[in-house]
Amino acid sequence: MIDTMSLGEFDLIEQYFWRPVGAGPHRAVVGNGDDCAVIAPAPGMQLAISTDTMVEGRHFLSTVDPARLGHKALAVNLSDLAACGAKPLAFTLALTLPRVEASWLSAFSKGLLALADEHDCELIGGDTTAGPLTIGITVLGEVPSGGALLRSGAQVGDDIWISGTPGEARLALEAFRGTLHPGLDARTFEAVRAAMECPTPRVALGQGLRGVATSAIDVSDGLLGDLGHVLRRSRVGASLALDALPVSPYLQDRARDLQLDCILAGGDDYELIFTSPASQRETMHQLEQQLGLMLTRVGRIEAEPGLRLWQGEQAVPNRWVSFDHFKGAA
Amino acid sequence: MIDTMSLGEFDLIEQYFWRPVGAGPHRAVVGNGDDCAVIAPAPGMQLAISTDTMVEGRHFLSTVDPARLGHKALAVNLSDLAACGAKPLAFTLALTLPRVEASWLSAFSKGLLALADEHDCELIGGDTTAGPLTIGITVLGEVPSGGALLRSGAQVGDDIWISGTPGEARLALEAFRGTLHPGLDARTFEAVRAAMECPTPRVALGQGLRGVATSAIDVSDGLLGDLGHVLRRSRVGASLALDALPVSPYLQDRARDLQLDCILAGGDDYELIFTSPASQRETMHQLEQQLGLMLTRVGRIEAEPGLRLWQGEQAVPNRWVSFDHFKGAA
Repeated sequence: MIDTMSLGEFDLIEQYFWRPVGAGPHRAVVGNGDDCAVIAPAPGMQLAISTDTMVEGRHFLSTVDPARLGHKALAVNLSDLAACGAKPLAFTLALTLPRVEASWLSAFSKGLLALADEHDCELIGGDTTAGPLTIGITVLGEVPSGGALLRSGAQVGDDIWISGTPGEARLALEAFRGTLHPGLDARTFEAVRAAMECPTPRVALGQGLRGVATSAIDVSDGLLGDLGHVLRRSRVGASLALDALPVSPYLQDRARDLQLDCILAGGDDYELIFTSPASQRETMHQLEQQLGLMLTRVGRIEAEPGLRLWQGEQAVPNRWVSFDHFKGAA
Repeated sequence: MIDTMSLGEFDLIEQYFWRPVGAGPHRAVVGNGDDCAVIAPAPGMQLAISTDTMVEGRHFLSTVDPARLGHKALAVNLSDLAACGAKPLAFTLALTLPRVEASWLSAFSKGLLALADEHDCELIGGDTTAGPLTIGITVLGEVPSGGALLRSGAQVGDDIWISGTPGEARLALEAFRGTLHPGLDARTFEAVRAAMECPTPRVALGQGLRGVATSAIDVSDGLLGDLGHVLRRSRVGASLALDALPVSPYLQDRARDLQLDCILAGGDDYELIFTSPASQRETMHQLEQQLGLMLTRVGRIEAEPGLRLWQGEQAVPNRWVSFDHFKGAA
């Protein structure tokens, strides 16, 4: 592909990522293509900022559909905004590419910009460079002054909630690893693969939890590990009822051990874990119906530090560890 | 180094990059360690945002002093803020590391945070992951509403100015490549190597140019190439007087061809090119004295498109091309 290999950096940005002014909502005063983008939050709002990087071979395989990769690279960042209760505004893209390939770039930018449009989140700047395939996104959102949901706000007596059915991404990973016996049927495999490759950030839920939840975090490293962050930051402990955990239909027929591995220690789900006082249970049911998204109460915040797992009245040892990029599943 | 290899991601962030609240200026309402950072620009200010990625083997060699690398990774981003006339506020860091090495991280974070402190620019969030060494920074600055310096503002008749003595980084590169005969003496080599590895972003100059310059850009890809961006965005042309170009003391004794190669087509200098009406020349002299930084008038904006080079009254063909990451020096 000689013609596309000779595409230069500046052409590349213009051709695939840069939209002419007037082609969409423009929140940026100065957009893509100057030294900086310039934006302003609305009066009374603060900016929420998050950065996430995805590296080939670590966060995705070279065989992944580039449109899904574009979607996911933004989705994991929007998920961080959701966990803070922020509304997406804009993002920057730092793209490191081993080579310029038109079909890849076209699909990647379509997947990326489709999700951006869905959330009215404008691409305001970026950087392309040659090197090992790495996608870095920094996303900006707005949140009412003082209203961001934090990890540190959980209170003793709060309920612990989880959205959706975490564990599907881990089930897909185990299918790719070939550890499932029997394996998944084709329809199930495609469904859980989509959960892993094309996650849905819980942006509307995050905004719905403003003023309702006392703390929130998104499940990127696994339910137990991410809940652990909330507990440490909030200086509290918790009890979790294993029987109460939502089980994905794709996990229903599987051994209980695999179910628990996927739900408790699977990452990459991008559901939200959050806490709120018992007085907000009715609000949760309303949110659930309004969003068409299952919200499940799975435990309670307690004063005693640490995390306790229960099967009915029976204490269950915690044999799960969360994912750490430098330790692996150490 | 078994103990440092087993350092996990969360420990790594805390140990090297995360400062306790109260240890420095805290502009962030929510800092490092939550899903998002939360900040607010001062009333009447807009946010300027820029992203730059540095990849090992492309932007730096594995042998570079990690403290200098930390400095440069932030410096190139501060330089983008400078080119917009913005005051640095905060930044996020996305660090991809092949392995966790305490001595490297310690030096890198020291170099990075020392420059951040110098410019009162707070590290508010980030991401670490395993993979090929890549440093991604997104920087946020503030600029008075409507007051950002842009590439698109150059006016016919404006003077063209350059700060400092660009070309030193390119001279260092040629020394590394072994193309210089005679080579550099040790003192000169160290000086130009520092210019390349440890550039000074022109942050104070950028803010001084607010309301004075009509356009600005930083020299990252080479004087001619970056001036070309200004001309295209402003829909103007220019004449450049080669005799007027500032020549670094380290280039004084070199052949004129090498001087011009380094000054016109050397990148990585992070000086500012800017335009302003002739009526502002006195302001430029005042800025020069106030900042202790040489500002040199090197040409004029003209209505006729394209860039013309002059040696006295003699037109000189443009044999230089600017750097493009995917074309190389094509």
